[in-house]
Amino acid sequence: MVRGRISRLSVRDVRFPTSLGGHGSDAMVSAGYMGARACGPSYSGDWSREGSGAPGDSSHPKCSVGFVGQAGGKGNSPHKCFREEQMLAQGYPAYTTSCAWLGYSDDTLKQVGATALQQGWLRADLLVKNLFLQMMDANQRWDVPEAVEWMSKLAKFKPLWIEEPTSPDDILGHATISKALVPLGIGVATGEQCHNRVIFKQLLQAKALQFLQIDSCRLGSINENLSVLLMAKKFEIPVCPHAGGVGLCELVQHLIIFDYISVSASLKNRMCEYVDHLHEHFKYPVMIQRASYMPPKDAGYSTEMKEESVRKHQYPDGEVWNKLLAAQEN
Amino acid sequence: MVRGRISRLSVRDVRFPTSLGGHGSDAMVSAGYMGARACGPSYSGDWSREGSGAPGDSSHPKCSVGFVGQAGGKGNSPHKCFREEQMLAQGYPAYTTSCAWLGYSDDTLKQVGATALQQGWLRADLLVKNLFLQMMDANQRWDVPEAVEWMSKLAKFKPLWIEEPTSPDDILGHATISKALVPLGIGVATGEQCHNRVIFKQLLQAKALQFLQIDSCRLGSINENLSVLLMAKKFEIPVCPHAGGVGLCELVQHLIIFDYISVSASLKNRMCEYVDHLHEHFKYPVMIQRASYMPPKDAGYSTEMKEESVRKHQYPDGEVWNKLLAAQEN
Repeated sequence: MVRGRISRLSVRDVRFPTSLGGHGSDAMVSAGYMGARACGPSYSGDWSREGSGAPGDSSHPKCSVGFVGQAGGKGNSPHKCFREEQMLAQGYPAYTTSCAWLGYSDDTLKQVGATALQQGWLRADLLVKNLFLQMMDANQRWDVPEAVEWMSKLAKFKPLWIEEPTSPDDILGHATISKALVPLGIGVATGEQCHNRVIFKQLLQAKALQFLQIDSCRLGSINENLSVLLMAKKFEIPVCPHAGGVGLCELVQHLIIFDYISVSASLKNRMCEYVDHLHEHFKYPVMIQRASYMPPKDAGYSTEMKEESVRKHQYPDGEVWNKLLAAQEN
Repeated sequence: MVRGRISRLSVRDVRFPTSLGGHGSDAMVSAGYMGARACGPSYSGDWSREGSGAPGDSSHPKCSVGFVGQAGGKGNSPHKCFREEQMLAQGYPAYTTSCAWLGYSDDTLKQVGATALQQGWLRADLLVKNLFLQMMDANQRWDVPEAVEWMSKLAKFKPLWIEEPTSPDDILGHATISKALVPLGIGVATGEQCHNRVIFKQLLQAKALQFLQIDSCRLGSINENLSVLLMAKKFEIPVCPHAGGVGLCELVQHLIIFDYISVSASLKNRMCEYVDHLHEHFKYPVMIQRASYMPPKDAGYSTEMKEESVRKHQYPDGEVWNKLLAAQEN
């Protein structure tokens, strides 16, 4: 066991004005960015392993479009080393929410959709099966009867899931919605705002969801996320992580690839959200190939940001905010 | 409607070293204390209406002893003005948790118990009925089967309730515990850590509690508390507020007296927690007479602290902490 001591902490308020471009259905994207300096017999450290949380992350898609499929049946192999090789070669299937933000005009929607297709958001196995999936997101806006009423009407568009149909704390409400919508072929997806394993335990116990969306920063620590992965395995519910925000994709790829290799051993009905924003600010950004997350090869949790990016986007004194706030005053 | 503008806010970190005397089963009692200066056509204010929250409040009794009874059947009167007069004359029934902290020795327990009796913690109607109630508090320590197992063994002591038997977020767990314990004559009490009305809605829907314990500072705003009072009325579950900490008694008395006069119209199975600590730091402290909260007669929410108390107990630079921290270093 490595023993050490945290000798210094730095906490910085980093914000990105993504709302100016209409990226995300809510306000700007922000993160509390914390760095720790550690020292000890085996590690006399620099600020080289940073951790970030995104308590102010408020980027939510209203409607998601993705392309995904089963990995040719290979996903159920019992062999961990095989699954590891498979991940290294093919990556973990992703879906993109970059192309359907509420704030986009119809023209922009068409353009970003076309760009997504050009960027390879069609997997080879999907092309053959001609599979097209559509997901919807209510961002917690409905009460329980409203959610059932709206989604019953929207069932003709065959959405795979409705995400956050009501308050994320309303386990019994989600159970009622699930019961009404599953017969219509619509699953309930939720989890990005669930604050601990106790809420997830109940969502699973109450059969309140068909897709479980962990978030790498909402739950407190990697360990809390792992406990949810294990419960999802027990209840045979696929985990489809929430991502986007500031660095959520970078973090959650570790969790979901671990889930496949060591816990679920299946890709059936599984995919990880991907949003094509803000990766340029990270030292070890995600690598997407053929609409899949390629396993990160650097050590650590991929959380470290470029110092220049942090400095520029610190609120309210960073260069970016200095200019924006000055412009607002004029 | 009064219109105005908040022109200044002050937020201060106030802590009381109650743990030094073993008062409370957890660590010291702390509060974020916020003052607001308002100005407007009808109010050009001083700091005379302050609001406080107690996010760091961590005073939990492990075992509570109280004396309480029905108010002679009068509590069910349909007349609001009668209930108002009744409150002004008799006050709202309270129970005390000052005499059973975990940190106290057996001798101290006997002494504080005797003092409580001397202070009048026997209501007249109770003396006649010779009613003695005992409540137990698990402070969320158990998992669900543990709670059932322990309380089944403790049933012989006839506790009125078991408080927070498991995680406060575990609605389905509380429902399981309730189902097992109600036949043994033990109710489940919870709520002091419930963060919004959605959690309370589900606790009520799932028949997960027999006593509902709102907290004046845990829920965000008076309005959120009022929504819970209304739901409790609908489900016919008595509200027995949590109090103690820094100023919780001062705040919650307003809510529970309002509940009696305008919502529940009943005192049956109802009482409000009282802890005899820290009231001397408040400008408008609670007034307890014959083990009852007497309605506050000053305007406002009774939240304002004495400036001298705040100054002395500010962490880490107040006089009290200066001395304590210096002593710790020596």
